[in-house]
Amino acid sequence: MANQAERTNTFKVMNEYLNASVYVKLKGGEGVKGVLKSFDQHLNLVLENAEELTERGSRSLGTVLVRGDSIVAISPVK
Amino acid sequence: MANQAERTNTFKVMNEYLNASVYVKLKGGEGVKGVLKSFDQHLNLVLENAEELTERGSRSLGTVLVRGDSIVAISPVK
Amino acid sequence: MANQAERTNTFKVMNEYLNASVYVKLKGGEGVKGVLKSFDQHLNLVLENAEELTERGSRSLGTVLVRGDSIVAISPVK
Amino acid sequence: MANQAERTNTFKVMNEYLNASVYVKLKGGEGVKGVLKSFDQHLNLVLENAEELTERGSRSLGTVLVRGDSIVAISPVK
Amino acid sequence: MANQAERTNTFKVMNEYLNASVYVKLKGGEGVKGVLKSFDQHLNLVLENAEELTERGSRSLGTVLVRGDSIVAISPVK
Amino acid sequence: MANQAERTNTFKVMNEYLNASVYVKLKGGEGVKGVLKSFDQHLNLVLENAEELTERGSRSLGTVLVRGDSIVAISPVK
Amino acid sequence: MANQAERTNTFKVMNEYLNASVYVKLKGGEGVKGVLKSFDQHLNLVLENAEELTERGSRSLGTVLVRGDSIVAISPVK
Repeated sequence: MANQAERTNTFKVMNEYLNASVYVKLKGGEGVKGVLKSFDQHLNLVLENAEELTERGSRSLGTVLVRGDSIVAISPVK
Repeated sequence: MANQAERTNTFKVMNEYLNASVYVKLKGGEGVKGVLKSFDQHLNLVLENAEELTERGSRSLGTVLVRGDSIVAISPVK
Repeated sequence: MANQAERTNTFKVMNEYLNASVYVKLKGGEGVKGVLKSFDQHLNLVLENAEELTERGSRSLGTVLVRGDSIVAISPVK
Repeated sequence: MANQAERTNTFKVMNEYLNASVYVKLKGGEGVKGVLKSFDQHLNLVLENAEELTERGSRSLGTVLVRGDSIVAISPVK
Repeated sequence: MANQAERTNTFKVMNEYLNASVYVKLKGGEGVKGVLKSFDQHLNLVLENAEELTERGSRSLGTVLVRGDSIVAISPVK
Repeated sequence: MANQAERTNTFKVMNEYLNASVYVKLKGGEGVKGVLKSFDQHLNLVLENAEELTERGSRSLGTVLVRGDSIVAISPVK
Repeated sequence: MANQAERTNTFKVMNEYLNASVYVKLKGGEGVKGVLKSFDQHLNLVLENAEELTERGSRSLGTVLVRGDSIVAISPVK
């Protein structure tokens, strides 16, 4: 079992993303980009100025709540 | 682990959507639009004057209960 | 976390549907229509005079037990 | 939350199906038909004289244990 | 809720299959055939002299552990 | 419910596979082959000298940790 | 049940991958490559200098949090 040190680090990176622009890769190949405003232990998260990115193009969403269950990966937008 | 502050914020945004028109992105690419009347900790939610949005067009649903398990994201309709 | 008030409301709407005709949208795009006779906290539900609605057409099912796990949304049939 | 009355009703219908011929709709569009001999709280169930119904035709299975997790709906065969 | 009597019966049939040849229908349409040597409450099971049956043909596996989570149904091979 | 005897047997076979070459059938049709070095109660497992087997051919992986949740079946390589 | 010795070994290999370059095979056939910085008991993990590898080519991600639920396998990059 991961020792407690690693355990907390996994979410530490999310704190570093707070108020930064992130790209959220969703199951099924789509994505959402926006400023991370909050998240919880299930990786449910809230993005502001969010944009939905799909094969059909992008669409502005404003503030969006994304369910952690649909998320594959989260990375900062450079 | 997200500290308690972020934890509650994730759902705070849902309270802000109450009685407002929201777009609910569903797994599988479909969506539902309507006025958010209630939700619970599983993100099961009730929409009034709801409309189902699919590739085949849209369909009026009236009041609809949507299971949180099928939801990818929720955002306000501008 | 949704305060207790919203929590209970989510299912209150199901009580309003009891003995009324509802449309149950299933994962995978199919649906079932019928008179809602009972449901439980997992949204397993029983419909009478039910009809299965698929791309291949509709099929009468009589009384049917539908597993909540397969349900996307439930709305009244007008 | 569904009050206790509805809660129990959902499974009451299964008791009515015991020793009757039922159609079990499976995830993925296939189905199984047979005489319901037993079931449990996960809707794992045992059918006798069962027949698998797929797009490729039907196949006799004899006595079959079907995992509840794969079940979408259960209805009596008229 | 299924009364205790039905509850235990669901697995009783598995005891009857022990040391008999069974067909295990897997999610996704494939199957495995073999002699049932053991199973547990998650329907993880061990088959001897097993054969994998797919659209591409069959392949001998020897002794195989099959995860219950991937199983749709289990029936005796006549 | 499977009596305790069968319960433990299901994993006994995994102990017999330790340090032997096994084929791990994954959800989605792919597979991994390698020497089983360890496993846990979720069937997360570690293989050495592992090889990924897909329709596009095979690829050497070295030591690999495979999540139990993605596993359909495990069998010895003859 | 895997005895305690095997249980801990399964994650021991992850400690050996810390600060090394790993390839993470994702459900759905895509992958991510990067330096493993942390992981937890759900195999949520953080990679630095990460690269997303898909059929459409590769894309630099920087630091990425990958949800364990989307992971099939993890292996060192040689």
